Amino acid sequence: MAEERRLALRELIERPADVAEVLDALSSEQATDLIHWLFLRHAAAEPLGEMDPDDSAELVVQLDRKEASEILSRMDPDDAVDLLLELPEDVQGELLSRLSRSDAKVLSDLLAYPPDSAGGLMTPEIVPLPLSITVEQAIARLRRLIEDAEPVHYAYAVDDRGHLQGVLSLRDMALASPSSNLKDLVIRDAISVPVDADAEDVARIFDKYDYSALPVVDDAQVLLGVITFDDVIDVIRAEATEDIYGLAGVPSEEAVDSSWSRSLRLRLPWLYVRLFTAMAAAVVVGLFEATIAKIAALAVLMGIIAGQGGSAGMQTVTIITRGMALGELDRVKGWRLLVKETLLGIANGILIGATVGAVAYLWKGEFLLGLAVFLAMTLNMVIAGACGVAIPLIVRRLGKDPALVSGIFLTTVTDVLGFGLMFVIAIWLLPGV
Amino acid sequence: MAEERRLALRELIERPADVAEVLDALSSEQATDLIHWLFLRHAAAEPLGEMDPDDSAELVVQLDRKEASEILSRMDPDDAVDLLLELPEDVQGELLSRLSRSDAKVLSDLLAYPPDSAGGLMTPEIVPLPLSITVEQAIARLRRLIEDAEPVHYAYAVDDRGHLQGVLSLRDMALASPSSNLKDLVIRDAISVPVDADAEDVARIFDKYDYSALPVVDDAQVLLGVITFDDVIDVIRAEATEDIYGLAGVPSEEAVDSSWSRSLRLRLPWLYVRLFTAMAAAVVVGLFEATIAKIAALAVLMGIIAGQGGSAGMQTVTIITRGMALGELDRVKGWRLLVKETLLGIANGILIGATVGAVAYLWKGEFLLGLAVFLAMTLNMVIAGACGVAIPLIVRRLGKDPALVSGIFLTTVTDVLGFGLMFVIAIWLLPGV
Repeated sequence: MAEERRLALRELIERPADVAEVLDALSSEQATDLIHWLFLRHAAAEPLGEMDPDDSAELVVQLDRKEASEILSRMDPDDAVDLLLELPEDVQGELLSRLSRSDAKVLSDLLAYPPDSAGGLMTPEIVPLPLSITVEQAIARLRRLIEDAEPVHYAYAVDDRGHLQGVLSLRDMALASPSSNLKDLVIRDAISVPVDADAEDVARIFDKYDYSALPVVDDAQVLLGVITFDDVIDVIRAEATEDIYGLAGVPSEEAVDSSWSRSLRLRLPWLYVRLFTAMAAAVVVGLFEATIAKIAALAVLMGIIAGQGGSAGMQTVTIITRGMALGELDRVKGWRLLVKETLLGIANGILIGATVGAVAYLWKGEFLLGLAVFLAMTLNMVIAGACGVAIPLIVRRLGKDPALVSGIFLTTVTDVLGFGLMFVIAIWLLPGV
Repeated sequence: MAEERRLALRELIERPADVAEVLDALSSEQATDLIHWLFLRHAAAEPLGEMDPDDSAELVVQLDRKEASEILSRMDPDDAVDLLLELPEDVQGELLSRLSRSDAKVLSDLLAYPPDSAGGLMTPEIVPLPLSITVEQAIARLRRLIEDAEPVHYAYAVDDRGHLQGVLSLRDMALASPSSNLKDLVIRDAISVPVDADAEDVARIFDKYDYSALPVVDDAQVLLGVITFDDVIDVIRAEATEDIYGLAGVPSEEAVDSSWSRSLRLRLPWLYVRLFTAMAAAVVVGLFEATIAKIAALAVLMGIIAGQGGSAGMQTVTIITRGMALGELDRVKGWRLLVKETLLGIANGILIGATVGAVAYLWKGEFLLGLAVFLAMTLNMVIAGACGVAIPLIVRRLGKDPALVSGIFLTTVTDVLGFGLMFVIAIWLLPGV
């Protein structure tokens, strides 16, 4: 191998995230070859830990089991667990059985935590320190126990039964005199995270306090592990993707590179749900077939009324559900939002309604038709605003994710009412209908 | 003041993020009182830096200018700039003029960078170190220059003209022997960010490499500042909010606690855009008024065809635009996506089309009506899939944000085609239309 290429490869190995990207781009055969090459250089664990677990799992199943289990034992335990969770159960079991007893215990303990909890995010690799020692002693201990590549910036003080007593910043230790005592450096009222905390709540704590790592404790305040900001960035991204997909009816398992048959299986159920609600709205329209036959213009206008109601309502749903996801909603009372969005619905409805009503009047020269359109539009927008607040609040109260289902309920309401109101008001107002 | 209350307050002061939350919840008068109280205890700068800049700006305009400028000088420069940007221009100028010349220069230099660039995110407060000194000398220098509260975990090595030479981890310094040389600890091929890099690209670099801070350099590799992960978490959140809002037609300036009149001004323009496109679709329907008067059932069915096309197309748009935001799209070729989504459109279209066609047939007992519905639905879904890929790709090529405008183009296509196809096919197939 030429010297230049060797250097390029060495540099590549030093940046696992770049290797992960290369592995992503290669065919599965080339990728497993590269992993084998990296494995011989003790450099396969980190890039696999950087990949999406479902992508790395696809590669790992094709490796020799012995090689795979050795790689697994060198991975950060939290990454190893994410990978294990994506493997078929028999492969998972076989790999775990090949690990040393202590490695296997660490991983199976972690596997017991739900992936979207603090326990599922944390790594148990921590160096606990007693408060009775000096900075110099602490540094000697850390030097022995921290691996080179780990970007650890904090250590944790525990008592002899493992209870968290405070946080120690390695930066503070670097700057302190070696003979000073840890108990003078420790931050005692440190923020910690309960092991069963929801991943999204953990993300909000990181976002609020700007720490790069937080300790995880059980009910008795025993230190179990640590969560670092990079895991949290993944949670924040995944959470946003889930909310964006939810509003558009895309299952959160899908990605740009899903196969088309998988995409079909994932998306079709939602299209059928949507079809079912559209048919409910169509049944309403069907009730007024005779009216449509008489005034075909109503068929032209009803779509606008339903559509605008849906658009305005989705604006509200989006703001409410995003506010919930960002934890901003707790600052604002539910009934205040209801009042605000209803007011907005009245104002939007009058303005948009007047426009469409005027167009309808100019088109057909019939004042009462314009008036009917105006009334139907205004009413639908007011109801859309109120439902845009009420539906996510009710969905959340029922313990479901508001971003996932509020949209479909909202558009069903605005479709059915958009069509229904148009016809009922038209029959009431217009002569000869 | 009782001892207990004093302790509670002292603990509060130690967590600026909690104080920020309290300030958010108070009335504006109470909040400015609390800021004044904190100011006297040198503790007002940090909580204001933790708040949303538009919220903190509302409080700062009400403060005495002298007090405000002193608080500003104690804030982290990047937070101070975010705050200044939200102030009326005269207040901004007055506050800057009251700062010391060096503080004012730091802030006005930062103000020159676009807020959504690396320069807008970075703080210029760095301690540059020469590589010629020992760890002990470096630590002495850091001890002098780093403020107590700053969670700095890295220092940066520069040559005598300020060019970045590498990154030094304070953790490595803590663990190294005091007499070792910095040049043995430095990470030379460190990742750095150009000062004009887009904030979203910076976020992707953090996400990929998992560093808690990255140095910012100019074209000549001169070190200008540092970006920390907490700024990036804000970027990721804001970016996701913008995309979510974009898909639903909500301006990104809006939040849950915007006043209703502001919300009206923000949302109404989009509703009018949506109305305009809905009217374009209505014009298509209007062309077929005579057909509707003959077969009112078509009016019932056309909404379903347009709606399902819109739903399927929005699934595609959402996946493509989210893939773009996450940087995943570069892994997959555009024409491959076009093929995939068109195939999906055919499969979805045939399945959903057959269902709706069957319902139409059962409803009216007319085979040709069912066939027309089937054909219109399938065609609309295929076109929706293809447009769902093509529109975001074209929008991005034109240099606009695909998440913001793709949805409105897509639904216009699916509405117009959903209505148009239904009628054209019906006139062609059905007898006596």
